[in-house]
Amino acid sequence: MKRALIVLTEAYADWELSYVAAELSMSHSFKIDTVSLGETTVTSIGQIKTIVDYTIDQITEPYDALIIIGGNSWPTIENEQLIQLIKTSLNEGIIVGAICGAVDFLARNHLLTGFKHTGNDLNTWTTDEKFKQYTNSIDFINEDSVIDQNLVTANGSSSVDFAFNVILALGLIDNKEAEKNKYFYKSGFVAYKLKYGEIG
Amino acid sequence: MKRALIVLTEAYADWELSYVAAELSMSHSFKIDTVSLGETTVTSIGQIKTIVDYTIDQITEPYDALIIIGGNSWPTIENEQLIQLIKTSLNEGIIVGAICGAVDFLARNHLLTGFKHTGNDLNTWTTDEKFKQYTNSIDFINEDSVIDQNLVTANGSSSVDFAFNVILALGLIDNKEAEKNKYFYKSGFVAYKLKYGEIG
Repeated sequence: MKRALIVLTEAYADWELSYVAAELSMSHSFKIDTVSLGETTVTSIGQIKTIVDYTIDQITEPYDALIIIGGNSWPTIENEQLIQLIKTSLNEGIIVGAICGAVDFLARNHLLTGFKHTGNDLNTWTTDEKFKQYTNSIDFINEDSVIDQNLVTANGSSSVDFAFNVILALGLIDNKEAEKNKYFYKSGFVAYKLKYGEIG
Repeated sequence: MKRALIVLTEAYADWELSYVAAELSMSHSFKIDTVSLGETTVTSIGQIKTIVDYTIDQITEPYDALIIIGGNSWPTIENEQLIQLIKTSLNEGIIVGAICGAVDFLARNHLLTGFKHTGNDLNTWTTDEKFKQYTNSIDFINEDSVIDQNLVTANGSSSVDFAFNVILALGLIDNKEAEKNKYFYKSGFVAYKLKYGEIG
């Protein structure tokens, strides 16, 4: 069984977690360990109280994916352990996924350098002093989710694309299956049946 | 502050919970109380460990919405307290939302009677002996999510439509805003900006 770490902060975005956790789980090849920056429980934007499996100081290798979920706390998060965890993962070729506010954190800490990527708001990244360590706007792609090398990024509207890009990057699904599944969740079952017929 | 009860069972579907909880919460007018059928914690399909606020025997009125999330446990759930809770809510005009396996539970227990509705699989409902109490297939609508009177139903692919139909039925949003927001989550931010311009 492989192991995915999913970082959850206080006021995390429920929808950004939901598909990626479920798809990793339904692959039947991943154990999911949720990780906080210190809390034993975190509460989502949707007021869902979540018990986390580990705090960040308890993380040990090996793990096969590091997924970082967006949410309302990211603008003020400073965390050297998380920076090091992301840096190590990117350097070691481990699949890293970051969505919404989590991509802002990467941008703020020079961690997007060397990777094509997307995110919520290029304008803020290139004008706000807080993002002075973001120096590769040339690599920003105007798409909802981007895979480059071992990094998957997405904006906050695109939790389905993010989830399927993560499991695509992990080799758990092929492009054709990913397209079908994304269509199911984004266009709905009624449209899916017209295009692909019944499930299964 | 109004109060929404959200019923979560073991192996609940993360994506079906995520948007409806977040949208209710972001309306700033709802406190969310999660409710289990007996457990103090439930684990989602995505392996997310969730602390529930109440067990079903602890539920007291008043509440303003009853939302029942799908998942893998529904085929074997028999629960008289839940049947009574749904029946009372429907009779009293409280908004009831059910998605995926939760709609199967309503169908199996004659609770869709008198309401137009949708669901995962009309064929099973009309052929499987377990669904002999489902007698109004004439009211099945071939759409991803349906609002009729105070009941909102949806199939398991359509968590965005479900969420916005629930908050529409609760009068928290108008049709135009709901369409914009659904487009944001279903088509992504890149397409949204082309159609509607920047957010805000």
